[in-house]
Amino acid sequence: MVQSQGRRGVSFLRHVKACNQYNSSNFIPFRIDAVRVGMVRPEFAAHLVSWPDIFQVRSDAVDLLLPGLSIADRSAIVADVLFELAESGVISHLHGEQYLATPGTRDQGMLLLDRAAAPYFGIRAFGQHMNGYLEHDGEIELWLGRRSDDRIYYPGCLDNLVAGGLPADISLRDNLSKECREEAGISSEMAEQALPVGAITYNLETGKGLKPDTLYCYDLKLPDSFIPRCVDGEVAGFELLPVQDVMNIVFESDEFKLNCNLVLVDFFIRHGYLGPDHHEYHELITGLHPDLAV
Amino acid sequence: MVQSQGRRGVSFLRHVKACNQYNSSNFIPFRIDAVRVGMVRPEFAAHLVSWPDIFQVRSDAVDLLLPGLSIADRSAIVADVLFELAESGVISHLHGEQYLATPGTRDQGMLLLDRAAAPYFGIRAFGQHMNGYLEHDGEIELWLGRRSDDRIYYPGCLDNLVAGGLPADISLRDNLSKECREEAGISSEMAEQALPVGAITYNLETGKGLKPDTLYCYDLKLPDSFIPRCVDGEVAGFELLPVQDVMNIVFESDEFKLNCNLVLVDFFIRHGYLGPDHHEYHELITGLHPDLAV
Repeated sequence: MVQSQGRRGVSFLRHVKACNQYNSSNFIPFRIDAVRVGMVRPEFAAHLVSWPDIFQVRSDAVDLLLPGLSIADRSAIVADVLFELAESGVISHLHGEQYLATPGTRDQGMLLLDRAAAPYFGIRAFGQHMNGYLEHDGEIELWLGRRSDDRIYYPGCLDNLVAGGLPADISLRDNLSKECREEAGISSEMAEQALPVGAITYNLETGKGLKPDTLYCYDLKLPDSFIPRCVDGEVAGFELLPVQDVMNIVFESDEFKLNCNLVLVDFFIRHGYLGPDHHEYHELITGLHPDLAV
Repeated sequence: MVQSQGRRGVSFLRHVKACNQYNSSNFIPFRIDAVRVGMVRPEFAAHLVSWPDIFQVRSDAVDLLLPGLSIADRSAIVADVLFELAESGVISHLHGEQYLATPGTRDQGMLLLDRAAAPYFGIRAFGQHMNGYLEHDGEIELWLGRRSDDRIYYPGCLDNLVAGGLPADISLRDNLSKECREEAGISSEMAEQALPVGAITYNLETGKGLKPDTLYCYDLKLPDSFIPRCVDGEVAGFELLPVQDVMNIVFESDEFKLNCNLVLVDFFIRHGYLGPDHHEYHELITGLHPDLAV
């Protein structure tokens, strides 16, 4: 059973805190048309000075110039800058998928940016994480993925059964269906049964910049006969574990990719496995849903 | 069906905003042993000046004196003050149930205060709200209570099937069982099946002071044969409605007691009826779980 009073380092809340380590004084606003859509480090902003027709860089803010252009046109111009920044090593790489810089939701997007550039500009990013599970007599077993050893981030770590970023040009439904197929061999008919059950938010400062992230959470009750299989090579294998074992892993270890812990804690809470008698309950409830820093 | 873009006043989010209207500059800290456990209006603090051995009232804070006393002893002394404040009409009435002033959770309580005095001192208050429902082929019907016309607050309004405050001297389990029996005629065996599914928080300024509230949320799947009946006279009657009808009531009207709307919105989200395509989704997710002001 999960211990509710803790050995050192043994806790659910430490994952929430680890996902919300950031210092706002390390950043200045990144704005489009006077609207803040991101946060950049002054050190990164200094590289943008090379394009004075595209970015106005001041000590207290960076503004995208290019007034009157369509989103597609301004995005194409910025994409050329990102290409040069990646060439010169200021940005680690380019991913290929496009994310939308937005002051709010995805339908308020103002600029397309390569996914790998998102943390440098500190724009809101969105993802979808799905817990797949079996249920017998009220007892739950969770299907988990094990990340391939060649992944850039968190190689070899445990993962939610399906988890992926949400590019700009695809609907929530289609992206979930795509990720279900690629990461776990789940048919589109089965993916349609996934239930949207909420979202978690966090603000994480990394070496690259700021990640103000929203992860849409889904539950999918799977048939006993279902065996996941990975199509795209991102997953090394799968494990089926009783929910109590998964709770122990989250509580005691760092085996999961960091943000997956938060998606699982939300699952434990919603399904009644982690209840109000737990000493971290209050801080988990508010800590899983902070306002985004951008 | 619920409309996602709105006529004026038609929204889920307006209930969240209505529950979180407060101005922190209207309050000063109420402290015990230098720990903030509440927030008081300076106008209320002025009444406490009459007991200089019990309260130290300054322009920027009120401190409870009485060092070295047990919680029971200091609470008895404060209870005498509350009696006089109620006699003189400064406090509206006394309720009889005791709430715990705490800087965090219920097990960190530092002072017992009559429930009716809680908002004047702006202490954290805790409640339990339970949605009782039927489910057929994935379609949900909710059992709702209709409050009696003689209730002090929200007479005649719709209510969650079971909802009550959480006094200091009772466990979560026993209090839920008691409220289930009194308000809906639910047996203790059936109440044991209620699933803790999370909590909502809000900070509400009222004429009396500040309510930094935490409501523990429960789901109870009921058998078709169940018919609720009220034992304690607080409920005038019950209604069984499809979840879509309940969503329309919450979206379009103020028929529900204010904080019940938040418990229902959380239910709609967790059960997939209110999904990430709704334009208010992001603000609802963070808005249902703000940090407490105290």
